[in-house]
Amino acid sequence: MCVPSPLQGISYLLFLSSEHLNFMKAPKKDFAYPAGYSELIKAAGLAEHSSVRGCMIIKPYGFALWENMKAILDKAFKQKGHVNAYFPLLIPTSYLSKEASHIQGFAKECAVVTHYRVAYDAKSETIVPDVDAKLQEPLVIRPTSETIIWQSYKNWINSYRDLPLRINQWANVVRWEMRPRLFLRTAEILWQEGHTAHASAEEAEQEALGMLEVYADFMEKTLAIPVVKGKKTLHERFSGAETTYTLEALMQDGKALQAGTSHFLGQNFAKAFEVKFTNQKGVMNYVWGTSWGLTTRLIGAMVMMHSDEKGLLLPPKIAPIQVVIIPIPAREEASSKLIAAEANLLCEALAKRGIRAKIDDRDSYRPGWKFAEYELQGIPLRAVIGLKEVMGKEVTLVRRDSGERVVQGVDDFLDSVDARLDEIQGALYQRALGFRKRQTVYVDDYATFKQVMKTQRGFVMAHWDGTTETEQKINQDTQATIRCIPLNGPEENGKCIYSGRPSGQRVLFAQAY
Amino acid sequence: MCVPSPLQGISYLLFLSSEHLNFMKAPKKDFAYPAGYSELIKAAGLAEHSSVRGCMIIKPYGFALWENMKAILDKAFKQKGHVNAYFPLLIPTSYLSKEASHIQGFAKECAVVTHYRVAYDAKSETIVPDVDAKLQEPLVIRPTSETIIWQSYKNWINSYRDLPLRINQWANVVRWEMRPRLFLRTAEILWQEGHTAHASAEEAEQEALGMLEVYADFMEKTLAIPVVKGKKTLHERFSGAETTYTLEALMQDGKALQAGTSHFLGQNFAKAFEVKFTNQKGVMNYVWGTSWGLTTRLIGAMVMMHSDEKGLLLPPKIAPIQVVIIPIPAREEASSKLIAAEANLLCEALAKRGIRAKIDDRDSYRPGWKFAEYELQGIPLRAVIGLKEVMGKEVTLVRRDSGERVVQGVDDFLDSVDARLDEIQGALYQRALGFRKRQTVYVDDYATFKQVMKTQRGFVMAHWDGTTETEQKINQDTQATIRCIPLNGPEENGKCIYSGRPSGQRVLFAQAY
Repeated sequence: MCVPSPLQGISYLLFLSSEHLNFMKAPKKDFAYPAGYSELIKAAGLAEHSSVRGCMIIKPYGFALWENMKAILDKAFKQKGHVNAYFPLLIPTSYLSKEASHIQGFAKECAVVTHYRVAYDAKSETIVPDVDAKLQEPLVIRPTSETIIWQSYKNWINSYRDLPLRINQWANVVRWEMRPRLFLRTAEILWQEGHTAHASAEEAEQEALGMLEVYADFMEKTLAIPVVKGKKTLHERFSGAETTYTLEALMQDGKALQAGTSHFLGQNFAKAFEVKFTNQKGVMNYVWGTSWGLTTRLIGAMVMMHSDEKGLLLPPKIAPIQVVIIPIPAREEASSKLIAAEANLLCEALAKRGIRAKIDDRDSYRPGWKFAEYELQGIPLRAVIGLKEVMGKEVTLVRRDSGERVVQGVDDFLDSVDARLDEIQGALYQRALGFRKRQTVYVDDYATFKQVMKTQRGFVMAHWDGTTETEQKINQDTQATIRCIPLNGPEENGKCIYSGRPSGQRVLFAQAY
Repeated sequence: MCVPSPLQGISYLLFLSSEHLNFMKAPKKDFAYPAGYSELIKAAGLAEHSSVRGCMIIKPYGFALWENMKAILDKAFKQKGHVNAYFPLLIPTSYLSKEASHIQGFAKECAVVTHYRVAYDAKSETIVPDVDAKLQEPLVIRPTSETIIWQSYKNWINSYRDLPLRINQWANVVRWEMRPRLFLRTAEILWQEGHTAHASAEEAEQEALGMLEVYADFMEKTLAIPVVKGKKTLHERFSGAETTYTLEALMQDGKALQAGTSHFLGQNFAKAFEVKFTNQKGVMNYVWGTSWGLTTRLIGAMVMMHSDEKGLLLPPKIAPIQVVIIPIPAREEASSKLIAAEANLLCEALAKRGIRAKIDDRDSYRPGWKFAEYELQGIPLRAVIGLKEVMGKEVTLVRRDSGERVVQGVDDFLDSVDARLDEIQGALYQRALGFRKRQTVYVDDYATFKQVMKTQRGFVMAHWDGTTETEQKINQDTQATIRCIPLNGPEENGKCIYSGRPSGQRVLFAQAY
């Protein structure tokens, strides 16, 4: 038996949900993104809600996506000179107050640990916090780790020889969520967070921008999601940062999704945690910092970017299964055995070429049912082998993205499979890019702006006077926010669509997730 | 510049502790295991304490060890047909009470989350739990995930077709620790936990034993730590298990360390969480379960097993850096350049062969200092290149384990480096095995038993009457516990060393970590 893909032989795991059966029976449009986003996630076996509000269970198929993302990103980080480490989950509440703007920002919605033991309460017959085990100082589960990491950097950095310090962490963080949504807004988030310290502001800026490039490259080349690189406005930037760089993607429903951020922290955390270094001339100064992160939210972004009425559509570079092989049993048992043998040979040959392939030889389901299942799961390429194919030493291929069907000689297929997967990868990206281009409009008056935000939405490039006041007014009227001030956007003199005051560059507006 | 190891170029990170400098200056015996265990961990840059009691910071060098362990184990799990998934960090307290013996066991020492927001208290000028954000039901941070995972299995398992279900999770867990020790006893632990469900008791038993074999193989072949496979006694077994299988290793100070456990859960969790399946005949029954786990404690085990007065001694299969290349500068600058170029060529050639190699070309430290540093860090092999070596197309090699020094032709070295590392790996294992053999005694009377536990300790094979009462009495007298009832131990009629009652097999006693 061919075991090339980590998911080989466990396809049943993907279907352990009633949503799956509903999907297989119901009109597909009920599950189509955007309305059916959560149903699609569940039907395809990516994730489901847990009974703890806001916390999700990432099922094996969804987690395989995250594992692939991690492997690619981790390699990219290490090539840039970062190393991984691990800092504690629990942070003393006193740390949170050290960087003043940090706690005034998002960090309040934290899970707070107040006791270190549970006890059985006979009266209520429940498990309760043990009153004798109250912590002197409450702890929070990290919502992000700047505070605890900079507390360490204080001890680790003395001299310019200790710099730059470039550490990344793969971890879980918790931020309480009132309106949870699978992958997009969850209380517990899996992510990576990079935290670096530098001897100069320039080097730290370069680091923040360099990581934005790594992220953009990953989004576009691996996830086939085009992104706009930009800076956040003062109002939208990370609490504790001097500059927040962001990647903004446009989803199929015309709403924007922030795909990742990279922050230039200036000396803010260094000052809060007293992290100083002595330079080559013996002069002491605070260090400059950055932080940057990507989360499991990207799985949601992929679903929203590429899905259609048949289900998911995964870019080959990230798909846990790139090619599914479906043998079509013949009437005669001997022929069926021959077909199964050929399917196995093909699977092994694909595996040897480094392709993640899988055979579905379950005899409890008909081919048509299987086709629909793998379409739902977004497997990029389906290879069908029946008696006709075996006789002709051929394979019938169906692309998930275009539905295109070709019959190809087995050897030709093996020689061209990499190119074919690259073609699908490229087609997904081009389709997404074309969509974004069509859905990006340049608007110069507020009435049109409001009209766009009421109807097709999408990305709107418009002039803005640079004030938080105007930004908030526009948001109140239209629910649109400034997603970013695009990097390298052309200078252009214009008038703010809201206030009429002068502006030197268009900014990117959208309603957002 | 050669960049074969993920740690290339960041050696400074390893030394960010005052313990390191103390080690370099102080008599080495102050740092030697066992008395200097924590100092050695810190001096070598593996980990340090955080300000949250019991939580440690795993530094890049220590985390690189964990990454290597993960990669090898993850591959082994997947080859056995397991897949990874992710379940929530937070567990409702009500789940804990479902499996009665589970909560009566270790699970009480939990971190309890009672609030979901913090607030600034102007009076005390501190951050406090927000009284308006109290959770209706408190949550605990998972001490282990049986309860939340079996809650899902209830929804995922209906029929024999859904079985076996084999899921593994890489996660952090929290168990409050009153006497924390780096890697050995920490409040937050990184680990993997496998949770499987089966259609028959036999298959579940096989799974539990099969994973014990995977673990034993990993301990012996990768970490070079010999282990005794056995069953825990009723008193020592996991709360909620029918049988707990264990691997017991003997550390250099004569104390035992439990390296990993694998539990046959019977139908206990299935009954607690109502997880039933219909078999091929249409009959419903509860499923049978297993769980098994390994933790970052293994890093502590490796330190205790292999360290000597020079510092760590890492088995090549797990060492983040397998070969360190140290160029010895010559008097003439031209010669030094030549030496540096040869060192780089050597590093590249090693990398091409898949060896994790690193050059230390810092000019701020003398070779002798560097030798001592890499000995402290336990790098298996040191390759020194000076002018003499360049002229002779040679390299001077020093083994960390034996101190053996040989001069070898560069090409010969490259051709034999794999074999040489295997030799070191084998020598470490044999040394540990020899130690264990010498420190394992067969004892037949209680006076001798007590004497052994007072003096050299080690493993003691002795007869026991099978009662918890005797087990506890022996423990009170000698601090020794029954580490396990060895699997496949020879049947032998004897008398319990404590009670004199009959016994059919010797069991393994030791004082333990």
